[in-house]
Amino acid sequence: MKIEICFSPLLYPAYRNDDWIVVIVDVFRATTTMCAAFASGAKSIIPVESIEEAKEYKDKGYLVGGERNVKRVDFADFGNTPSEYSSDKVKDQDIVLSTTNGTHAIETARDAYSLVIGAFSNLSKVADYCTKEQKNVLVLCSGWKDRFNIEDTLFGGALADLLIAKSGYELDSDAVTVALSMWQEAKTDIYKYIQRSEHIKRLAANDLLDVAEYCLKLDTAPIVPVYNKITRKLKALK
Amino acid sequence: MKIEICFSPLLYPAYRNDDWIVVIVDVFRATTTMCAAFASGAKSIIPVESIEEAKEYKDKGYLVGGERNVKRVDFADFGNTPSEYSSDKVKDQDIVLSTTNGTHAIETARDAYSLVIGAFSNLSKVADYCTKEQKNVLVLCSGWKDRFNIEDTLFGGALADLLIAKSGYELDSDAVTVALSMWQEAKTDIYKYIQRSEHIKRLAANDLLDVAEYCLKLDTAPIVPVYNKITRKLKALK
Repeated sequence: MKIEICFSPLLYPAYRNDDWIVVIVDVFRATTTMCAAFASGAKSIIPVESIEEAKEYKDKGYLVGGERNVKRVDFADFGNTPSEYSSDKVKDQDIVLSTTNGTHAIETARDAYSLVIGAFSNLSKVADYCTKEQKNVLVLCSGWKDRFNIEDTLFGGALADLLIAKSGYELDSDAVTVALSMWQEAKTDIYKYIQRSEHIKRLAANDLLDVAEYCLKLDTAPIVPVYNKITRKLKALK
Repeated sequence: MKIEICFSPLLYPAYRNDDWIVVIVDVFRATTTMCAAFASGAKSIIPVESIEEAKEYKDKGYLVGGERNVKRVDFADFGNTPSEYSSDKVKDQDIVLSTTNGTHAIETARDAYSLVIGAFSNLSKVADYCTKEQKNVLVLCSGWKDRFNIEDTLFGGALADLLIAKSGYELDSDAVTVALSMWQEAKTDIYKYIQRSEHIKRLAANDLLDVAEYCLKLDTAPIVPVYNKITRKLKALK
Protein backbone atom coordinates (compact mmCIF):
# COMPACT_ATOMS: atom_id res chain seq x y z
CA MET A 1 0.00 0.00 0.00
CA LYS A 2 1.00 3.57 -0.66
CA ILE A 3 0.88 6.79 1.27
CA GLU A 4 1.10 10.18 -0.43
CA ILE A 5 0.81 13.77 0.81
CA CYS A 6 -0.85 16.60 -1.10
CA PHE A 7 0.26 19.98 0.23
CA SER A 8 -2.79 22.03 -0.75
CA PRO A 9 -6.38 21.63 -1.96
CA LEU A 10 -5.23 23.43 -5.12
CA LEU A 11 -2.82 20.55 -5.86
CA TYR A 12 -5.50 17.89 -5.38
CA PRO A 13 -6.11 17.28 -9.13
CA ALA A 14 -2.49 16.05 -9.42
CA TYR A 15 -2.98 13.51 -6.61
CA ARG A 16 -6.65 12.60 -6.81
CA ASN A 17 -7.57 8.94 -6.87
CA ASP A 18 -11.13 8.21 -5.79
CA ASP A 19 -10.20 4.69 -4.71
CA TRP A 20 -7.95 6.00 -1.91
CA ILE A 21 -8.67 7.02 1.66
CA VAL A 22 -8.25 10.78 2.00
CA VAL A 23 -7.21 12.12 5.40
CA ILE A 24 -7.98 15.83 5.67
CA VAL A 25 -5.76 17.72 8.07
CA ASP A 26 -5.84 21.28 9.34
CA VAL A 27 -3.83 21.07 12.56
CA PHE A 28 -4.29 24.79 13.33
CA ARG A 29 -7.18 24.37 13.97
CA ALA A 30 -10.20 23.03 12.10
CA THR A 31 -9.56 19.30 12.19
CA THR A 32 -8.31 19.44 15.79
CA THR A 33 -11.49 21.31 16.65
CA MET A 34 -13.65 18.68 14.93
CA CYS A 35 -11.96 15.86 16.83
CA ALA A 36 -12.43 17.76 20.10
CA ALA A 37 -16.13 18.30 19.41
CA PHE A 38 -16.64 14.58 18.77
CA ALA A 39 -14.60 13.67 21.85
CA SER A 40 -17.06 15.91 23.75
CA GLY A 41 -19.96 13.87 22.38
CA ALA A 42 -21.16 15.91 19.38
CA LYS A 43 -23.61 13.91 17.29
CA SER A 44 -22.49 15.21 13.92
CA ILE A 45 -20.59 18.04 12.24
CA ILE A 46 -21.84 19.62 9.05
CA PRO A 47 -18.87 21.26 7.32
CA VAL A 48 -19.85 24.16 5.08
CA GLU A 49 -17.59 26.21 2.81
CA SER A 50 -19.21 29.63 2.95
CA ILE A 51 -20.07 31.96 5.79
CA GLU A 52 -23.41 32.64 4.08
CA GLU A 53 -24.36 28.98 4.30
CA ALA A 54 -23.26 28.87 7.95
CA LYS A 55 -25.51 31.88 8.65
CA GLU A 56 -28.49 30.13 7.04
CA TYR A 57 -28.00 27.18 9.38
CA LYS A 58 -27.72 29.58 12.33
CA ASP A 59 -31.03 31.15 11.35
CA LYS A 60 -32.59 27.67 11.32
CA GLY A 61 -31.49 27.16 14.92
CA TYR A 62 -28.29 25.15 14.52
CA LEU A 63 -25.23 25.60 16.69
CA VAL A 64 -22.60 27.14 14.43
CA GLY A 65 -18.82 27.38 14.58
CA GLY A 66 -17.33 29.96 12.24
CA GLU A 67 -13.82 31.31 11.71
CA ARG A 68 -12.11 33.47 9.11
CA ASN A 69 -8.51 34.64 9.27
CA VAL A 70 -7.99 33.22 12.77
CA LYS A 71 -10.98 35.13 14.27
CA ARG A 72 -14.47 33.96 15.24
CA VAL A 73 -17.22 35.04 12.86
CA ASP A 74 -19.57 37.48 14.67
CA PHE A 75 -22.82 35.48 14.56
CA ALA A 76 -21.20 32.15 15.46
CA ASP A 77 -21.68 30.24 18.72
CA PHE A 78 -18.11 28.98 18.58
CA GLY A 79 -14.85 29.99 16.96
CA ASN A 80 -12.22 27.52 15.82
CA THR A 81 -10.75 26.65 19.22
CA PRO A 82 -11.09 23.03 20.41
CA SER A 83 -11.80 23.87 24.08
CA GLU A 84 -14.89 25.90 23.13
CA TYR A 85 -16.59 22.67 22.08
CA SER A 86 -17.14 21.38 25.61
CA SER A 87 -19.38 18.52 26.50
CA ASP A 88 -22.06 20.71 28.15
CA LYS A 89 -22.46 22.64 24.90
CA VAL A 90 -22.08 20.05 22.15
CA LYS A 91 -23.13 16.66 23.54
CA ASP A 92 -25.67 15.03 21.17
CA GLN A 93 -25.81 18.16 19.05
CA ASP A 94 -25.42 18.68 15.30
CA ILE A 95 -22.80 21.37 14.77
CA VAL A 96 -22.27 23.42 11.62
CA LEU A 97 -18.65 24.46 11.01
CA SER A 98 -17.05 26.81 8.49
CA THR A 99 -13.35 27.71 8.73
CA THR A 100 -10.76 29.49 6.57
CA ASN A 101 -9.06 26.38 5.21
CA GLY A 102 -10.27 23.09 6.66
CA THR A 103 -13.85 22.98 5.44
CA HIS A 104 -12.70 23.95 1.92
CA ALA A 105 -10.38 20.91 1.86
CA ILE A 106 -13.27 18.59 2.76
CA GLU A 107 -15.36 19.89 -0.12
CA THR A 108 -12.42 19.38 -2.51
CA ALA A 109 -12.06 15.68 -1.73
CA ARG A 110 -15.66 14.70 -1.13
CA ASP A 111 -15.70 12.01 -3.83
CA ALA A 112 -12.92 9.95 -2.26
CA TYR A 113 -13.51 6.29 -1.39
CA SER A 114 -13.41 7.36 2.23
CA LEU A 115 -12.82 10.79 3.69
CA VAL A 116 -11.70 11.07 7.30
CA ILE A 117 -10.48 13.83 9.56
CA GLY A 118 -6.95 13.73 10.95
CA ALA A 119 -5.13 15.75 13.59
CA PHE A 120 -2.36 15.08 16.06
CA SER A 121 -5.14 14.57 18.58
CA ASN A 122 -6.41 11.43 16.79
CA LEU A 123 -3.21 10.33 15.03
CA SER A 124 -3.08 6.74 16.30
CA LYS A 125 -6.78 6.19 15.64
CA VAL A 126 -6.41 7.41 12.05
CA ALA A 127 -3.42 5.08 11.55
CA ASP A 128 -5.48 2.17 12.93
CA TYR A 129 -8.37 3.05 10.62
CA CYS A 130 -6.11 3.10 7.52
CA THR A 131 -4.43 -0.18 8.48
CA LYS A 132 -7.79 -1.84 8.96
CA GLU A 133 -9.13 -0.60 5.62
CA GLN A 134 -6.00 -1.82 3.78
CA LYS A 135 -6.24 1.00 1.27
CA ASN A 136 -3.82 3.53 -0.16
CA VAL A 137 -3.83 6.78 1.79
CA LEU A 138 -3.63 10.39 0.67
CA VAL A 139 -3.10 13.05 3.33
CA LEU A 140 -4.68 16.26 2.07
CA CYS A 141 -3.22 19.28 3.83
CA SER A 142 -5.55 22.24 4.15
CA GLY A 143 -2.63 24.63 4.00
CA TRP A 144 -3.08 28.37 4.42
CA LYS A 145 -5.17 29.92 1.65
CA ASP A 146 -3.99 27.18 -0.67
CA ARG A 147 -0.31 27.66 0.22
CA PHE A 148 1.96 25.03 1.73
CA ASN A 149 2.22 24.96 5.51
CA ILE A 150 4.52 23.21 7.94
CA GLU A 151 2.05 21.96 10.55
CA ASP A 152 -0.20 19.96 8.22
CA THR A 153 2.83 18.50 6.44
CA LEU A 154 4.22 17.46 9.81
CA PHE A 155 1.03 15.56 10.56
CA GLY A 156 1.46 13.82 7.20
CA GLY A 157 4.98 12.82 8.24
CA ALA A 158 3.73 11.51 11.59
CA LEU A 159 1.00 9.39 9.95
CA ALA A 160 3.43 8.11 7.30
CA ASP A 161 5.86 7.16 10.05
CA LEU A 162 3.22 5.00 11.75
CA LEU A 163 1.96 3.43 8.52
CA ILE A 164 5.40 2.68 7.07
CA ALA A 165 6.94 1.41 10.30
CA LYS A 166 4.01 -0.64 11.54
CA SER A 167 1.77 -1.49 8.62
CA GLY A 168 4.02 -2.11 5.66
CA TYR A 169 3.08 0.97 3.64
CA GLU A 170 5.73 1.81 1.00
CA LEU A 171 7.79 4.99 0.93
CA ASP A 172 7.60 6.05 -2.70
CA SER A 173 6.95 9.80 -2.76
CA ASP A 174 9.07 12.92 -2.55
CA ALA A 175 6.43 14.71 -0.47
CA VAL A 176 6.35 11.87 2.07
CA THR A 177 10.15 11.67 2.16
CA VAL A 178 10.36 15.35 3.10
CA ALA A 179 7.49 15.18 5.60
CA LEU A 180 9.02 12.13 7.30
CA SER A 181 12.34 13.88 7.65
CA MET A 182 10.57 16.91 9.20
CA TRP A 183 8.74 14.59 11.61
CA GLN A 184 11.98 12.84 12.64
CA GLU A 185 13.38 16.22 13.61
CA ALA A 186 10.18 17.46 15.26
CA LYS A 187 8.78 14.53 17.16
CA THR A 188 10.69 14.88 20.41
CA ASP A 189 9.41 18.47 20.80
CA ILE A 190 6.73 19.36 18.27
CA TYR A 191 5.86 22.67 19.92
CA LYS A 192 9.47 23.83 19.71
CA TYR A 193 9.77 22.74 16.06
CA ILE A 194 6.60 24.56 15.07
CA GLN A 195 7.97 27.91 16.27
CA ARG A 196 9.52 28.23 12.80
CA SER A 197 6.11 28.17 11.08
CA GLU A 198 4.19 31.13 9.71
CA HIS A 199 0.96 30.23 11.43
CA ILE A 200 2.35 30.18 14.95
CA LYS A 201 2.89 33.94 14.52
CA ARG A 202 -0.75 34.44 13.55
CA LEU A 203 -1.87 32.40 16.56
CA ALA A 204 0.49 34.30 18.89
CA ALA A 205 -0.87 37.62 17.57
CA ASN A 206 -4.36 36.38 18.53
CA ASP A 207 -3.28 35.16 21.97
CA LEU A 208 -3.79 31.53 20.98
CA LEU A 209 -0.46 29.90 21.86
CA ASP A 210 -2.07 27.68 24.50
CA VAL A 211 -4.45 26.45 21.79
CA ALA A 212 -1.48 25.76 19.49
CA GLU A 213 0.10 23.69 22.24
CA TYR A 214 -3.10 21.64 22.61
CA CYS A 215 -3.31 21.12 18.83
CA LEU A 216 0.15 19.51 18.85
CA LYS A 217 -0.60 16.97 21.59
CA LEU A 218 -0.95 13.37 20.44
CA ASP A 219 -4.04 11.21 20.91
CA THR A 220 -6.14 13.41 23.16
CA ALA A 221 -9.31 12.70 21.11
CA PRO A 222 -9.37 8.98 20.28
CA ILE A 223 -12.04 9.01 17.56
CA VAL A 224 -12.05 9.14 13.75
CA PRO A 225 -14.54 11.55 12.15
CA VAL A 226 -15.77 10.01 8.89
CA TYR A 227 -17.55 11.97 6.16
CA ASN A 228 -20.77 10.64 4.71
CA LYS A 229 -21.11 11.66 1.06
CA ILE A 230 -24.90 11.31 1.06
CA THR A 231 -25.78 13.24 4.20
CA ARG A 232 -22.67 15.49 3.88
CA LYS A 233 -22.14 15.13 7.60
CA LEU A 234 -19.20 13.95 9.66
CA LYS A 235 -19.80 11.34 12.33
CA ALA A 236 -17.37 9.80 14.80
CA LEU A 237 -16.12 6.26 14.53
CA LYS A 238 -14.99 5.13 17.96
CA MET B 1 12.62 41.81 0.04
CA LYS B 2 10.93 38.46 0.11
CA ILE B 3 11.61 35.07 -1.34
CA GLU B 4 8.90 32.43 -1.73
CA ILE B 5 8.83 28.95 -3.28
CA CYS B 6 5.88 27.52 -5.20
CA PHE B 7 6.11 23.73 -5.42
CA SER B 8 4.14 23.19 -8.62
CA PRO B 9 2.73 25.13 -11.59
CA LEU B 10 -0.69 24.01 -10.33
CA LEU B 11 -0.12 25.99 -7.12
CA TYR B 12 0.90 29.14 -8.97
CA PRO B 13 -2.46 30.96 -8.54
CA ALA B 14 -1.89 30.91 -4.75
CA TYR B 15 1.54 32.57 -5.10
CA ARG B 16 1.22 34.68 -8.22
CA ASN B 17 2.30 38.29 -8.06
CA ASP B 18 3.13 39.85 -11.40
CA ASP B 19 5.43 42.39 -9.77
CA TRP B 20 7.88 39.66 -8.67
CA ILE B 21 10.79 37.99 -10.41
CA VAL B 22 9.86 34.38 -11.15
CA VAL B 23 12.72 31.88 -11.30
CA ILE B 24 11.62 28.73 -13.13
CA VAL B 25 13.48 25.59 -12.11
CA ASP B 26 13.44 22.06 -13.47
CA VAL B 27 16.76 20.65 -12.26
CA PHE B 28 16.17 17.25 -13.91
CA ARG B 29 16.59 18.42 -16.63
CA ALA B 30 14.91 21.19 -18.66
CA THR B 31 16.35 24.30 -17.03
CA THR B 32 19.81 22.73 -16.69
CA THR B 33 19.60 21.88 -20.39
CA MET B 34 18.63 25.47 -21.28
CA CYS B 35 21.55 26.88 -19.31
CA ALA B 36 23.92 24.41 -21.01
CA ALA B 37 22.64 25.38 -24.46
CA PHE B 38 23.25 29.06 -23.74
CA ALA B 39 26.67 28.32 -22.26
CA SER B 40 27.39 26.60 -25.61
CA GLY B 41 26.47 29.79 -27.44
CA ALA B 42 22.85 29.21 -28.47
CA LYS B 43 21.28 32.47 -29.75
CA SER B 44 17.81 31.86 -28.31
CA ILE B 45 15.51 29.15 -26.96
CA ILE B 46 11.85 29.07 -27.90
CA PRO B 47 10.03 27.08 -25.21
CA VAL B 48 6.82 25.45 -26.45
CA GLU B 49 4.28 23.48 -24.42
CA SER B 50 3.06 20.92 -26.93
CA ILE B 51 4.83 18.32 -29.02
CA GLU B 52 2.62 19.33 -31.95
CA GLU B 53 3.95 22.87 -31.86
CA ALA B 54 7.52 21.56 -31.61
CA LYS B 55 6.89 19.42 -34.71
CA GLU B 56 5.62 22.47 -36.64
CA TYR B 57 8.87 24.29 -35.86
CA LYS B 58 10.84 21.21 -36.93
CA ASP B 59 9.01 21.18 -40.26
CA LYS B 60 9.97 24.83 -40.72
CA GLY B 61 13.64 23.90 -40.35
CA TYR B 62 14.32 24.75 -36.69
CA LEU B 63 16.56 22.68 -34.44
CA VAL B 64 14.24 21.06 -31.92
CA GLY B 65 14.75 19.53 -28.47
CA GLY B 66 11.85 17.37 -27.31
CA GLU B 67 11.32 15.11 -24.33
CA ARG B 68 8.36 13.32 -22.76
CA ASN B 69 8.54 10.98 -19.76
CA VAL B 70 12.34 11.09 -19.64
CA LYS B 71 12.75 9.98 -23.30
CA ARG B 72 13.64 11.95 -26.44
CA VAL B 73 10.72 12.60 -28.81
CA ASP B 74 11.29 10.68 -32.08
CA PHE B 75 11.50 13.60 -34.51
CA ALA B 76 13.66 15.80 -32.27
CA ASP B 77 17.29 16.75 -32.88
CA PHE B 78 18.02 16.70 -29.17
CA GLY B 79 16.55 15.14 -26.05
CA ASN B 80 16.65 16.80 -22.65
CA THR B 81 20.27 16.11 -21.76
CA PRO B 82 22.57 19.13 -21.32
CA SER B 83 25.63 17.58 -23.03
CA GLU B 84 23.69 17.08 -26.28
CA TYR B 85 23.60 20.85 -26.73
CA SER B 86 27.26 21.17 -27.65
CA SER B 87 28.78 24.27 -29.17
CA ASP B 88 29.27 22.73 -32.63
CA LYS B 89 25.52 22.07 -32.83
CA VAL B 90 23.88 25.04 -31.13
CA LYS B 91 26.21 28.05 -31.45
CA ASP B 92 24.26 31.04 -32.83
CA GLN B 93 21.20 28.88 -33.39
CA ASP B 94 17.58 29.35 -32.33
CA ILE B 95 16.48 26.18 -30.54
CA VAL B 96 12.90 25.08 -29.93
CA LEU B 97 12.40 23.09 -26.73
CA SER B 98 9.46 21.15 -25.34
CA THR B 99 9.80 19.02 -22.18
CA THR B 100 7.50 17.15 -19.80
CA ASN B 101 7.49 19.74 -17.04
CA GLY B 102 9.83 22.69 -17.56
CA THR B 103 8.29 24.36 -20.58
CA HIS B 104 4.82 24.10 -19.01
CA ALA B 105 6.05 26.06 -15.98
CA ILE B 106 7.34 28.86 -18.21
CA GLU B 107 3.96 29.20 -19.90
CA THR B 108 2.25 29.35 -16.48
CA ALA B 109 4.28 32.31 -15.26
CA ARG B 110 4.75 34.24 -18.49
CA ASP B 111 3.14 37.44 -17.17
CA ALA B 112 5.62 37.89 -14.34
CA TYR B 113 7.60 41.14 -14.05
CA SER B 114 10.63 39.14 -15.04
CA LEU B 115 10.91 35.44 -15.78
CA VAL B 116 14.31 33.81 -15.61
CA ILE B 117 15.64 30.26 -15.75
CA GLY B 118 17.38 28.77 -12.75
CA ALA B 119 19.37 25.58 -12.19
CA PHE B 120 22.23 24.54 -9.96
CA SER B 121 24.42 25.23 -12.98
CA ASN B 122 23.69 28.98 -12.87
CA LEU B 123 22.78 29.38 -9.18
CA SER B 124 25.20 32.20 -8.33
CA LYS B 125 24.32 34.13 -11.47
CA VAL B 126 20.61 33.94 -10.68
CA ALA B 127 21.28 35.15 -7.14
CA ASP B 128 23.31 38.06 -8.53
CA TYR B 129 20.51 38.92 -10.96
CA CYS B 130 17.88 38.98 -8.19
CA THR B 131 20.08 41.06 -5.91
CA LYS B 132 20.70 43.59 -8.68
CA GLU B 133 17.00 43.85 -9.56
CA GLN B 134 16.06 44.40 -5.88
CA LYS B 135 12.73 42.67 -6.35
CA ASN B 136 10.82 39.99 -4.49
CA VAL B 137 11.56 36.53 -5.85
CA LEU B 138 9.31 33.53 -6.43
CA VAL B 139 10.96 30.22 -7.27
CA LEU B 140 8.50 28.23 -9.38
CA CYS B 141 9.30 24.53 -9.25
CA SER B 142 8.31 22.57 -12.34
CA GLY B 143 7.69 19.46 -10.27
CA TRP B 144 6.77 16.15 -11.84
CA LYS B 145 3.41 16.25 -13.61
CA ASP B 146 2.33 18.96 -11.21
CA ARG B 147 3.43 17.05 -8.10
CA PHE B 148 6.00 18.20 -5.58
CA ASN B 149 9.58 17.10 -6.16
CA ILE B 150 12.71 17.21 -4.06
CA GLU B 151 15.29 18.43 -6.58
CA ASP B 152 13.53 21.64 -7.59
CA THR B 153 12.72 22.43 -3.96
CA LEU B 154 16.37 21.94 -3.11
CA PHE B 155 17.34 24.52 -5.73
CA GLY B 156 14.84 26.89 -4.07
CA GLY B 157 16.56 26.29 -0.74
CA ALA B 158 19.97 26.95 -2.28
CA LEU B 159 18.85 30.23 -3.86
CA ALA B 160 17.10 31.31 -0.65
CA ASP B 161 20.27 30.57 1.28
CA LEU B 162 22.29 32.92 -0.94
CA LEU B 163 19.65 35.68 -0.97
CA ILE B 164 18.95 35.58 2.76
CA ALA B 165 22.57 35.28 3.86
CA LYS B 166 24.10 37.79 1.44
CA SER B 167 21.39 40.12 0.21
CA GLY B 168 19.09 40.76 3.13
CA TYR B 169 16.06 38.88 1.84
CA GLU B 170 13.61 37.96 4.66
CA LEU B 171 12.73 34.44 5.70
CA ASP B 172 8.96 34.58 6.03
CA SER B 173 7.56 31.45 4.38
CA ASP B 174 6.94 27.86 5.43
CA ALA B 175 7.97 26.58 2.00
CA VAL B 176 11.29 28.43 2.16
CA THR B 177 11.89 27.30 5.75
CA VAL B 178 11.55 23.66 4.71
CA ALA B 179 13.59 24.08 1.52
CA LEU B 180 16.38 25.82 3.43
CA SER B 181 16.53 23.04 5.95
CA MET B 182 16.72 20.47 3.11
CA TRP B 183 19.55 22.48 1.53
CA GLN B 184 21.50 22.66 4.80
CA GLU B 185 21.41 18.88 4.95
CA ALA B 186 22.16 18.39 1.26
CA LYS B 187 24.76 20.95 0.36
CA THR B 188 27.90 19.07 1.32
CA ASP B 189 26.90 16.18 -0.97
CA ILE B 190 23.93 16.99 -3.18
CA TYR B 191 24.23 13.84 -5.28
CA LYS B 192 24.07 11.66 -2.20
CA TYR B 193 21.07 13.57 -0.80
CA ILE B 194 19.13 13.26 -4.05
CA GLN B 195 19.29 9.46 -3.99
CA ARG B 196 16.12 9.63 -1.87
CA SER B 197 14.16 11.33 -4.66
CA GLU B 198 11.62 9.71 -6.99
CA HIS B 199 13.16 11.12 -10.13
CA ILE B 200 16.63 9.69 -9.60
CA LYS B 201 15.03 6.26 -10.06
CA ARG B 202 13.51 7.32 -13.39
CA LEU B 203 16.88 8.68 -14.53
CA ALA B 204 18.68 5.52 -13.39
CA ALA B 205 16.17 3.38 -15.31
CA ASN B 206 17.06 5.39 -18.41
CA ASP B 207 20.82 5.16 -17.82
CA LEU B 208 21.06 8.88 -17.04
CA LEU B 209 22.83 8.96 -13.68
CA ASP B 210 25.86 10.75 -15.13
CA VAL B 211 23.46 13.43 -16.39
CA ALA B 212 21.91 13.69 -12.93
CA GLU B 213 25.37 14.24 -11.46
CA TYR B 214 26.03 17.04 -13.96
CA CYS B 215 22.66 18.66 -13.16
CA LEU B 216 23.63 18.93 -9.49
CA LYS B 217 26.96 20.69 -10.07
CA LEU B 218 27.07 24.35 -9.13
CA ASP B 219 27.87 27.20 -11.50
CA THR B 220 28.97 25.30 -14.59
CA ALA B 221 26.94 27.60 -16.89
CA PRO B 222 27.40 31.20 -15.72
CA ILE B 223 24.56 32.86 -17.62
CA VAL B 224 20.93 33.82 -16.81
CA PRO B 225 18.34 32.95 -19.46
CA VAL B 226 15.66 35.67 -19.46
CA TYR B 227 12.24 35.28 -21.08
CA ASN B 228 10.97 37.99 -23.40
CA LYS B 229 7.17 38.23 -23.18
CA ILE B 230 6.83 39.83 -26.62
CA THR B 231 9.02 37.51 -28.68
CA ARG B 232 8.33 34.53 -26.35
CA LYS B 233 11.99 33.60 -26.56
CA LEU B 234 14.66 33.10 -23.95
CA LYS B 235 17.96 34.88 -24.36
CA ALA B 236 21.04 34.72 -22.20
CA LEU B 237 22.16 37.56 -19.98
CA LYS B 238 25.89 37.22 -19.38
